[in-house]
Amino acid sequence: MTEGAGKTLDFAVFGAGRMGRIHAANLARQPGVRLRYVVDVDRDAAAALAARHGAQVADVDGAFGDPSVGATVICSSTDTHSELIMKSAAAGKHIFCEKPVDLAIERARQCADAVARAGVVCMIGFQRRFDPTFAALKARLDAGEIGTPEMLIVTSRDPGAPPVDYIRRSGGIFKDMLIHDFDIFRWILDDDADTVHATGSCLSDPAIADAGDIDSTAVTIRTKRGRLCQINTARRAAYGYDQRFEVLGSHGMLQAGNVRPTEVVGWSKTAVSQDVPEAFFLERYRAAYAHEIEHFYSAVMQGTPVRTTVADGLKALELAEAAALSWREGRAVKVGAAG
Amino acid sequence: MTEGAGKTLDFAVFGAGRMGRIHAANLARQPGVRLRYVVDVDRDAAAALAARHGAQVADVDGAFGDPSVGATVICSSTDTHSELIMKSAAAGKHIFCEKPVDLAIERARQCADAVARAGVVCMIGFQRRFDPTFAALKARLDAGEIGTPEMLIVTSRDPGAPPVDYIRRSGGIFKDMLIHDFDIFRWILDDDADTVHATGSCLSDPAIADAGDIDSTAVTIRTKRGRLCQINTARRAAYGYDQRFEVLGSHGMLQAGNVRPTEVVGWSKTAVSQDVPEAFFLERYRAAYAHEIEHFYSAVMQGTPVRTTVADGLKALELAEAAALSWREGRAVKVGAAG
Amino acid sequence: MTEGAGKTLDFAVFGAGRMGRIHAANLARQPGVRLRYVVDVDRDAAAALAARHGAQVADVDGAFGDPSVGATVICSSTDTHSELIMKSAAAGKHIFCEKPVDLAIERARQCADAVARAGVVCMIGFQRRFDPTFAALKARLDAGEIGTPEMLIVTSRDPGAPPVDYIRRSGGIFKDMLIHDFDIFRWILDDDADTVHATGSCLSDPAIADAGDIDSTAVTIRTKRGRLCQINTARRAAYGYDQRFEVLGSHGMLQAGNVRPTEVVGWSKTAVSQDVPEAFFLERYRAAYAHEIEHFYSAVMQGTPVRTTVADGLKALELAEAAALSWREGRAVKVGAAG
Amino acid sequence: MTEGAGKTLDFAVFGAGRMGRIHAANLARQPGVRLRYVVDVDRDAAAALAARHGAQVADVDGAFGDPSVGATVICSSTDTHSELIMKSAAAGKHIFCEKPVDLAIERARQCADAVARAGVVCMIGFQRRFDPTFAALKARLDAGEIGTPEMLIVTSRDPGAPPVDYIRRSGGIFKDMLIHDFDIFRWILDDDADTVHATGSCLSDPAIADAGDIDSTAVTIRTKRGRLCQINTARRAAYGYDQRFEVLGSHGMLQAGNVRPTEVVGWSKTAVSQDVPEAFFLERYRAAYAHEIEHFYSAVMQGTPVRTTVADGLKALELAEAAALSWREGRAVKVGAAG
Repeated sequence: MTEGAGKTLDFAVFGAGRMGRIHAANLARQPGVRLRYVVDVDRDAAAALAARHGAQVADVDGAFGDPSVGATVICSSTDTHSELIMKSAAAGKHIFCEKPVDLAIERARQCADAVARAGVVCMIGFQRRFDPTFAALKARLDAGEIGTPEMLIVTSRDPGAPPVDYIRRSGGIFKDMLIHDFDIFRWILDDDADTVHATGSCLSDPAIADAGDIDSTAVTIRTKRGRLCQINTARRAAYGYDQRFEVLGSHGMLQAGNVRPTEVVGWSKTAVSQDVPEAFFLERYRAAYAHEIEHFYSAVMQGTPVRTTVADGLKALELAEAAALSWREGRAVKVGAAG
Repeated sequence: MTEGAGKTLDFAVFGAGRMGRIHAANLARQPGVRLRYVVDVDRDAAAALAARHGAQVADVDGAFGDPSVGATVICSSTDTHSELIMKSAAAGKHIFCEKPVDLAIERARQCADAVARAGVVCMIGFQRRFDPTFAALKARLDAGEIGTPEMLIVTSRDPGAPPVDYIRRSGGIFKDMLIHDFDIFRWILDDDADTVHATGSCLSDPAIADAGDIDSTAVTIRTKRGRLCQINTARRAAYGYDQRFEVLGSHGMLQAGNVRPTEVVGWSKTAVSQDVPEAFFLERYRAAYAHEIEHFYSAVMQGTPVRTTVADGLKALELAEAAALSWREGRAVKVGAAG
Repeated sequence: MTEGAGKTLDFAVFGAGRMGRIHAANLARQPGVRLRYVVDVDRDAAAALAARHGAQVADVDGAFGDPSVGATVICSSTDTHSELIMKSAAAGKHIFCEKPVDLAIERARQCADAVARAGVVCMIGFQRRFDPTFAALKARLDAGEIGTPEMLIVTSRDPGAPPVDYIRRSGGIFKDMLIHDFDIFRWILDDDADTVHATGSCLSDPAIADAGDIDSTAVTIRTKRGRLCQINTARRAAYGYDQRFEVLGSHGMLQAGNVRPTEVVGWSKTAVSQDVPEAFFLERYRAAYAHEIEHFYSAVMQGTPVRTTVADGLKALELAEAAALSWREGRAVKVGAAG
Repeated sequence: MTEGAGKTLDFAVFGAGRMGRIHAANLARQPGVRLRYVVDVDRDAAAALAARHGAQVADVDGAFGDPSVGATVICSSTDTHSELIMKSAAAGKHIFCEKPVDLAIERARQCADAVARAGVVCMIGFQRRFDPTFAALKARLDAGEIGTPEMLIVTSRDPGAPPVDYIRRSGGIFKDMLIHDFDIFRWILDDDADTVHATGSCLSDPAIADAGDIDSTAVTIRTKRGRLCQINTARRAAYGYDQRFEVLGSHGMLQAGNVRPTEVVGWSKTAVSQDVPEAFFLERYRAAYAHEIEHFYSAVMQGTPVRTTVADGLKALELAEAAALSWREGRAVKVGAAG
């Protein structure tokens, strides 16, 4: 039997939107786990999610005030993350928090400190590391299948841009969208960035430019050991959600491809066709979301370390800031230096 | 809201083996559904499954005797299927039963009659019709994408032969393994068999021949409308579970391919490689098992017809008998005739 | 230097149609080789081909009467093959002849005898054995990569039926179209047929049925060692020329897939698409035609044995006759027996 | 009949190495074309190539001095290109020249001027534009299949680094290897570079670093219209010659994939495998070399414009210089400006 056998865990979820519902259901499915409180400014959404799991609607203080709550799942809007993390840490509750920790690095650092002082588990939702395809690639890389990794090419494209209102509050494409790709970079190349160069354009909708942002980026990172990474992103890929990367190593290459809904192949007069990729992140990363919460669950119940820490969140954020600076100033930026 | 909203359903499961555990969990996950009884000659297995779902262990009479039980899920050994179907029908309980209905056609016919008289839902577990890839192909075929279907090629290979003891009680490869392929044939070509020709060999293990069976078959069916179907099967494919088919139509072709665990592609000095297919039926048809139980649940709660009836079970069995006869006598066999 | 260095070879081609032009060009490209005569009832076609290679137009006797002619390439209509083979043999000239040797087995046997007596090289144009994909598969099979071959599935579909006039003179689909597939069967499984079962239908054009033929077939062969082969063919595949086969062996599987004109992949809103296969045999087997003539050239110049002999032509013809008999009489046929 | 019917063309080839032999054979195969002279400092190589085509060995002056020579094919070492181009132009002979025009942009400009003044055809050997896959992609892009191109990702990797002696004289990786990729960029995105950023590393062999060069590069180009291009290259890909690119457009994506020697797929216990790509440029671009010479032939015989002019060679060279500067100075470089 595992160390955690027989233990129970009650948790509260902050945010009853899409991600809150997914994480709550995945965590509540674990043995011995119970959803106690749902907190959301939208009381109807909170009530609906609570009803589905036999939980109660609460406000922030109510949820933190109950000592029987052992963990919090934070899926509320980005601007609430850091405050909720710090309150959870202060209350001694373990934390699962969606990315990003905060749009401001300084606040994110304070969170990291608070978590460290409190000694609670704090896992940031970089779910891609738990995707079966990405995780299998990483395991084969670590097993030495292609020798030393030398070059990483990341393709990360959304099926369409979010509303401009969202973009305005998003912190910009580098913090909002590429934050995941920067985490993939760190995870796969296992090295620190030395310089970052980023450029980009607004090609799909001038309203995005008016909001001070871009919708297409081309980022290059050179690591301290001289490894190279190129990331290309677009807010709009007409064919859907495109999530691929490939690693060139000294002895070969590993590619992580898109996932298709079905394996039907159609042969017509003009083409041999397969499905377009899974529509968007909810479909593409369905398994990843389940696996990351199981990982969090194990960490809490058995005291094992988490794979995506608040420190990882910080590092990704630093890269996002460096990339944004590079784009704005049109020059390569030294990471970790004054710029 | 759907018609079934608010209704509840208690059910009993017969057989606490692999399939019993999967079906019980999938059915118990539906809203308003509760597992009440687990029946198995192996009391420990029954108790373990019951405990997981807050159900009770019962014997056959106990389960049938409780009027609150609205449905039965039959996953016990093949020789018990027909008796349990008839008892369920007599008790007015809806039935989900694993294939085959019975190894003897006459018994299967009696089941069909009993179910019809009782007016209960009876669904046979031809889960392949619920596989996302197969179902998508069928939907596109029905939508006319490739015109009239003319030819069907089915490849159906297991990763390894079961123990010879199992084979001895299996009814032979045509009833045990090809039963699924015969159902696929009827479903896809939407036509009745006119003649069947089957040949085969024992190539992997002489013990299978000693048990009076074969491990490799080549079956050809010509339908009443002149459509053609070829089925090739093997008990042992070294690379794993191979489940493919393709339909040639007057305007194109549709293929249903294998499903891979991940989308990693490895490039080495000698090859560009992908994963072998999902290991066996539990993995390959995981989604199909969930979908077929949801379908059964809808049929019971909302009175909609089931896609895989006991009549389908009978038809597949008739084809299996005709194929076995063809193989034994080395001649093409007219289906539905005296042979 | 090879044994053939410095030798020269003059040859005559019979038939100035598509295949005659291809073979003449491929053979004339070899070092030391010269096209001397073109023979065709269509004098214009003969003259055009002759002009391209600096050759002369001749009649049959003129070509055979010139002792400087060392080899003949026979690409004229099927009903002339056996006579030209026998005249070539009588004149001591090496022979490359398109399939089939003759529609009548007895005539084909006489050709085999004549060739054997004369001691000339006689190669039959089963070009598929020289296709890079098929030949690589065969080499890997022979190297033991998948252990013992146990099952062969052949898919062989034309993009459209030829004119009914052609079909009427073709000898029927088994001799005209499946002759190639029967040769693939013998080559890949390396075993003799024990029984053949064939069925078929006319699904694309009733005029083919009126001509006494079918356009779709399903053939099963069981070999003397118990290996199984299924061949499916159609005169009309809307998506083009479909030429695939796969071999299941005791340790794995090898598949030979179609060849695409380009490796462009298009991603649209609805599909991820590749090219349809090469349009027809002239495109699909372009390399194979070149390789088979190089093989013939080597055999003639260096005395090495040919890979596709007149005996292979005979064996394929016997299988075609057995299949046709099986189809007409609706029963499995013993090969090599009275039927 | 075409305009060029009946015309003849005699040509001289400079350089009897691999590319000289390929181009000479491809050009000599065109109707009415004859190879007259082979010029090479290696007299044996020149003699062998001349013998194969019934040509004569000559020195530079001999070849240029014969007025019957209408065209020159320049495949000699890079440092001789510009002089031979200028002599050809002065002699009024049409020119096909391997890339690059010259390592020094100033010399290349002089060539462009000389060619323009002389009014001769001058085609630079950017053979990739004639590759069937790349050319089909470009045609579909131009036909509007994916709307406006917005982003281009180029993967260009060699199977292994050339000898360090070669690298030392190569002009550096940007002029030697990426010159082709810069031409692909201009051809596909149909736009001028505004800024270039390049970084790189020496990861495979320290001797390359000692020679002042790198073996891995990551280049980003932003065009005047805001389109983005990322190019990744490596001198050593363990799995072979990797030549891919993909274009993201406003309505979809087009990818150009690698070409495999065969379409065999092997299924083993552990993997489903295809061939690695064609080994190197001679194999990968065999068809492209034939098509580009046919294109040159048409241009000369019929006066049609060439697709890859000396101006294209100049532009690619300018990009290579800008990239090299960016790499050396660690900053993005404005193209066409003082830097």
